[in-house]
Amino acid sequence: MNASPDITERFKRGDKGAVARAISWAENGDPRFATLIADVYSKVGHAWRIGITGPPGAGKSTLVNEIAKALRTRERTVGILAVDPSSPLSGGALLGDRIRMEERTLDKGIYIRSMASRGSHGGLSRTTVDACDAMDAFGFDEIVVETVGVGQAEYDVVSAADTVVVVLCPGAGDGVQAMKAGLLEVADVLAVNKAELPGADRLIMDLEEAVHIRLAGKSTWMTPVVACSAARGDGIEDLIAAVERHREHLKAHDLDGIRREKRLAQVHRVLDERIAEHLWSGGGFGERARALLDSGRSPYDVVAELFSALLAEHRHQKNGAK
Amino acid sequence: MNASPDITERFKRGDKGAVARAISWAENGDPRFATLIADVYSKVGHAWRIGITGPPGAGKSTLVNEIAKALRTRERTVGILAVDPSSPLSGGALLGDRIRMEERTLDKGIYIRSMASRGSHGGLSRTTVDACDAMDAFGFDEIVVETVGVGQAEYDVVSAADTVVVVLCPGAGDGVQAMKAGLLEVADVLAVNKAELPGADRLIMDLEEAVHIRLAGKSTWMTPVVACSAARGDGIEDLIAAVERHREHLKAHDLDGIRREKRLAQVHRVLDERIAEHLWSGGGFGERARALLDSGRSPYDVVAELFSALLAEHRHQKNGAK
Repeated sequence: MNASPDITERFKRGDKGAVARAISWAENGDPRFATLIADVYSKVGHAWRIGITGPPGAGKSTLVNEIAKALRTRERTVGILAVDPSSPLSGGALLGDRIRMEERTLDKGIYIRSMASRGSHGGLSRTTVDACDAMDAFGFDEIVVETVGVGQAEYDVVSAADTVVVVLCPGAGDGVQAMKAGLLEVADVLAVNKAELPGADRLIMDLEEAVHIRLAGKSTWMTPVVACSAARGDGIEDLIAAVERHREHLKAHDLDGIRREKRLAQVHRVLDERIAEHLWSGGGFGERARALLDSGRSPYDVVAELFSALLAEHRHQKNGAK
Repeated sequence: MNASPDITERFKRGDKGAVARAISWAENGDPRFATLIADVYSKVGHAWRIGITGPPGAGKSTLVNEIAKALRTRERTVGILAVDPSSPLSGGALLGDRIRMEERTLDKGIYIRSMASRGSHGGLSRTTVDACDAMDAFGFDEIVVETVGVGQAEYDVVSAADTVVVVLCPGAGDGVQAMKAGLLEVADVLAVNKAELPGADRLIMDLEEAVHIRLAGKSTWMTPVVACSAARGDGIEDLIAAVERHREHLKAHDLDGIRREKRLAQVHRVLDERIAEHLWSGGGFGERARALLDSGRSPYDVVAELFSALLAEHRHQKNGAK
């Protein structure tokens, strides 16, 4: 297999067009991605990966924009990945907010990419990690992964990050209340954006109390609650400082082990996709399964037959190849 | 493999304890489920499966209670499955609302069961279908699957149903707005509960308009919007009538084909789980994958090695067994 030596060369030279191409390969399941990333994998691990999630309307895009700006003043290069798993049934990324960020793309130290679900959010988690690996190997110092919404699909996506920032704002109401338990479990940092609005102090207090109840005495990391206002540019430094404290904390507490488990999760995703593709696209298992179902067999019976057929087929192929 | 002839006998005799046991087997991945369901699979397909989803606070549990009551007055037997995929990170079902339903469990024509995620919502979709198949084969006329929340995990769960009812209520705000596109895609019937509250008429009009824009001229089924008030017992008959119209519509439009595709989706889930289990639990692939990752290999390289090892291993086993 050939990863287009030209693209690999351009990737190593720091040509952003090559990282864009690599991410497209990952999105399309093109095998050239595997070849490229294997070639540059020794460089993966340099970047810090920040995941940003929270309900629609919390101001995540503006916040990401401000964070990127602040990181650039520190001479850090930034890769931004905007992932939209929220409309898996219709597809299509919410790109509106991204337009505001275009001003930054003239800056050579920033790269922005959007990705949307194509009906498989398992796939989107895999693609997100691939895109982060590509940006990491490419040499960005910081990678920011932003998602829309607060459901399971979004958690799956941001779980690839080293530090997960959950962004809330006052007045979001019941939904956030109901999600609180789940949010606390994924958040390494809680950001209360639009902190100038009424209700912000109350929300901060509520969150601090919830963190205390949940984590005091049980965790070495107490999730900080940071007030900010992305629209006014307030509190961004505090937020970055909180992310950096979390980074130092992880470095002191088995960062390598944690990252290895995240890579292992990626191995799971890639292997699952590979097997599923083998069965359903290549193997004609869909037709066989339909015929078995039509004969009145239960799904478990059908699986037993397909599984046997899978093993027999490989035996045959291997013997034939001798 | 033996499915406990005793349980199968009790299942066929209509002993609710046996259906409870079957569902527990499905939840625990016990192979006895496959044996039992194969034995009774010819009876699957009798029940109508109604999925009910919607944001927290929309009054779904009260509504399910009222629907069950109304179906019982028609002499229909009802199996109710309350599925909670909303806290996949913490596990544990929201059972509070279920307590109100306990009054119904003395009725022999009703069976109620709760299920919660155990960290794998793929697994929860599979278990939901298994539980529906078991209740269907057991002989319930109607199966109601209720989920908490409106995310991808909930859609996955209710997608097993023949008719999906999305329950909304006035005043739920932005979140619902943001979810509207996704909701419209999964809903066969839209129920506006708490229709006595201010804002209900507006919500109904908005939804009707959204349905019209989305479906007019494109679909043979125009999702009806039904006003109801579960707490007051109003509109329940209208809601059931809408579900029955959808049922007649599907019967006139390839119900068998649709159900076959849903069974095929279940075959996918079962096969994926079987392969994953084989690899990660039985095959010691986790340890091998960790070792390969530690040597600096990329996830794709690790997968390539594991995949080859998988095939070689089977070849060896098969040859050894000759």
